[in-house]
Amino acid sequence: MAPLSWTNETTELGVTERAFQISVAGENVPGIAWSPEGKDHWPTILIGHGGTQHKRTPGVLSLARRLVRHLGYGAVAIDAPEHGDRRTEPQDAVAPNEMRQRIANMTPEQLKAMADRNGGAVGEWRATLDAVAATPGFSSGPFGYWGVSMGTAIGLPYVASDPRISAAVFGLAGVGNRPGSDRLAELAATIKIPVLFLFQWDDELMEREHGLALFDAIGSDDKTMHVNPGGHIQMPFHERDSVEAFFARHIRTTD
Amino acid sequence: MAPLSWTNETTELGVTERAFQISVAGENVPGIAWSPEGKDHWPTILIGHGGTQHKRTPGVLSLARRLVRHLGYGAVAIDAPEHGDRRTEPQDAVAPNEMRQRIANMTPEQLKAMADRNGGAVGEWRATLDAVAATPGFSSGPFGYWGVSMGTAIGLPYVASDPRISAAVFGLAGVGNRPGSDRLAELAATIKIPVLFLFQWDDELMEREHGLALFDAIGSDDKTMHVNPGGHIQMPFHERDSVEAFFARHIRTTD
Repeated sequence: MAPLSWTNETTELGVTERAFQISVAGENVPGIAWSPEGKDHWPTILIGHGGTQHKRTPGVLSLARRLVRHLGYGAVAIDAPEHGDRRTEPQDAVAPNEMRQRIANMTPEQLKAMADRNGGAVGEWRATLDAVAATPGFSSGPFGYWGVSMGTAIGLPYVASDPRISAAVFGLAGVGNRPGSDRLAELAATIKIPVLFLFQWDDELMEREHGLALFDAIGSDDKTMHVNPGGHIQMPFHERDSVEAFFARHIRTTD
Repeated sequence: MAPLSWTNETTELGVTERAFQISVAGENVPGIAWSPEGKDHWPTILIGHGGTQHKRTPGVLSLARRLVRHLGYGAVAIDAPEHGDRRTEPQDAVAPNEMRQRIANMTPEQLKAMADRNGGAVGEWRATLDAVAATPGFSSGPFGYWGVSMGTAIGLPYVASDPRISAAVFGLAGVGNRPGSDRLAELAATIKIPVLFLFQWDDELMEREHGLALFDAIGSDDKTMHVNPGGHIQMPFHERDSVEAFFARHIRTTD
């Protein structure tokens, strides 16, 4: 895979933000890479956004900037299938709350189709890291992954398949009686890298026992689950500090 | 209550350590207070040790020194009933592993007696904080509490009864079918301050569902549970960073 080629570049408060586009299996996948101004190499965290979100959604953007400013890391996000610039419906046709409601009410067939689509996205992350790993500055690694909710549905199978990822944050996901749960649990069992698993105790999209079962299934000796009260999108801000501390502990700079 | 009067004092690497003794209901309760050299007042964390341990057990000592050195706080620990200098059996008569085994095998009557003894210790913490709050340097507050396992069995009822405590770390404890569980759950429900609850996923002394039930019972909106794999005494060292971040967030210095 060729290095990323930038379609746009800005630098603000020490954070260089560059847009790119890669082609994967005939699909154009748009992404953004953030990196620390004035450094020549850095570790990089891949950031997988949640359902209804996109590569530059506020939570992704603030996490990326924090990783750059506080830790001197880089970060990379891409639009998931049917999200962000890859939506085929108009961007504002479905409000996030409405979309979450739809997901909560999905039929088994619809859930199966979503699981298949997420499976395809795994290859997009692999191709993205191929390109990232060929790009000056980003190429030195090491590499981590962060993604909750759909960012885990896509990211956990991806991380299980890519030995270049050396630590991962997952969460807001579970295994139970949904289509694809058995496969997700099997893949989780193959993961041996350090994992931080973030869960909301009153998640309206995920039962407690399903979240606990996914944490339990993860094969890593070094795994920690953080549980907070509140719904799917009410994770407290202090978990951002936990994420930063987790990556600072496990994704070491090479200089 | 009169201020603490010191029976011994040393300072090492910026940490002043002073021994004291207070009298509570006819019992002499020995304690240690740690404080930052060269400051005139500081927030203070009360540290409740675990079963088979004592006021200067390695985990208590390293937590106290870390709170002083990293955050500029003070810390106070006392020997629980029948622990440390208050043991009536010789200190080395029962090895910690053997003691844990005994606890795991306790009869309902023995568990009831232990719960009663822990109840008495609540008054000792209240008297200790009365004296601490009258002691120059320590008197400004604010005050937090840290204690897992027996440190929760004693500390949770104590914290529920003392409005001077403004944030608490509990863990390695639960509510289920033991004597005293209903009362512990009721008291937990009255706690409204921020709580960090630390739990071991393979705790040989506490079933998972009992730990989850105690976390669930805590009445605070701001509560977080951290779950790690491993047994009762295998909590990973990185949880010390979490404890420090938790107190730094909630126990603010007054200067």
